[in-house]
Amino acid sequence: MTKKEYIEIEAHMLNQMRDSAHDKHHIYRVLNTALDIADFMQDIKDIDVLLAACLLHDIGRERQFANPGLCHAQIGGNMACDFLLSRKWPKAKAAHVKECISSHRYRGDNPPQSIEAKILFDADKLDATGAMGIARTLFYNGQVQEPLYILDQVGNIVTDGDEKTSSFIQEYNYKLKNVYESFCTERAKEIALARQKTAIEFYNGLFAEIVQNYEHGINNRPILLSE
Amino acid sequence: MTKKEYIEIEAHMLNQMRDSAHDKHHIYRVLNTALDIADFMQDIKDIDVLLAACLLHDIGRERQFANPGLCHAQIGGNMACDFLLSRKWPKAKAAHVKECISSHRYRGDNPPQSIEAKILFDADKLDATGAMGIARTLFYNGQVQEPLYILDQVGNIVTDGDEKTSSFIQEYNYKLKNVYESFCTERAKEIALARQKTAIEFYNGLFAEIVQNYEHGINNRPILLSE
Repeated sequence: MTKKEYIEIEAHMLNQMRDSAHDKHHIYRVLNTALDIADFMQDIKDIDVLLAACLLHDIGRERQFANPGLCHAQIGGNMACDFLLSRKWPKAKAAHVKECISSHRYRGDNPPQSIEAKILFDADKLDATGAMGIARTLFYNGQVQEPLYILDQVGNIVTDGDEKTSSFIQEYNYKLKNVYESFCTERAKEIALARQKTAIEFYNGLFAEIVQNYEHGINNRPILLSE
Repeated sequence: MTKKEYIEIEAHMLNQMRDSAHDKHHIYRVLNTALDIADFMQDIKDIDVLLAACLLHDIGRERQFANPGLCHAQIGGNMACDFLLSRKWPKAKAAHVKECISSHRYRGDNPPQSIEAKILFDADKLDATGAMGIARTLFYNGQVQEPLYILDQVGNIVTDGDEKTSSFIQEYNYKLKNVYESFCTERAKEIALARQKTAIEFYNGLFAEIVQNYEHGINNRPILLSE
């Protein structure tokens, strides 16, 4: 890819993501991680496809945000393909970028097939591991005003989560904790495992701090308040 | 304090904080921590003052948010005092609650004097230590759309922060890192030191992940893009 082509695709990405300034850093991290993983792959065929797929993989997010019934991976794949065709990319290469983007989603039922798609999938998921995964999740909780934790009726922290989960503690148990298990490439597994300890220790530390706080708290001191 | 009085003050707090649902958990944690610290203090004089001061310490936040020139500790102290007087509290007790609240602010130039004020000050600051301090800061970054980190012109992470700091990494270095140094009570120092390792390891882990990511990244591969 020429420098000029890269800058054009990058500008298109930045333009599509103008309403979520923080997300561009995620894009660059995914791109950087993908290049790291690619260094370890003997059979990578098209580095240009990988670069374009990384830069454009989240351009469908704004439309998904406006209409949660849509899947940003599917829309983004189509949007990226149309954009690249308009920049005179060959049909096969543009279709390959579409394949990468449409199969990159965590929890998707459309697993990545080509080596470039597998690298994008792993690079994107690596941004949910370690301290970065914790930081991004807490950042998201703040954005959408979801609490750090929810207490049940007897004062225990709710840990069970699902797709519609609504606290950091639940989201950790439903998603972040399990993200280490299903990478496609050996290099991604290696990076993920090196980061896992930081995430586990942070979660355990936070959980213990909350438990300790409520143990000594007002609800466990019935004699403090008179009738 | 009677249970009825407690519930009235609690309801007033919840009513004042209706626009920031997540903050009520902070209030209960501060209350719980204050009771823990109070267990270790021989000379605590008025547990009712401590309870009321903890419950009401942040009720000035909404006005400070609307007008950043105001100090929520000063306003909150006055608001709490007025409320307690309206509930027929004795003037001296209501004034004591006002003293606690007006001197509770981190970075304030009005240090806590009474033992109850010192306990509130420490209990509030403890919520900025350990994993909880990290989690709350990241949550705030997400709320106000401040980034995790900023890169300077040569691609290094900016770590220097000040009062107007604008990334998590800067906020950690300006505030969170130094919060362990100035507690008033021995019990608070003990709790803070037990939590410090989690915070340091999370910060160091996050920093290393970001550095590693950019080291292998697109900006360090000039030969990847042709002229």
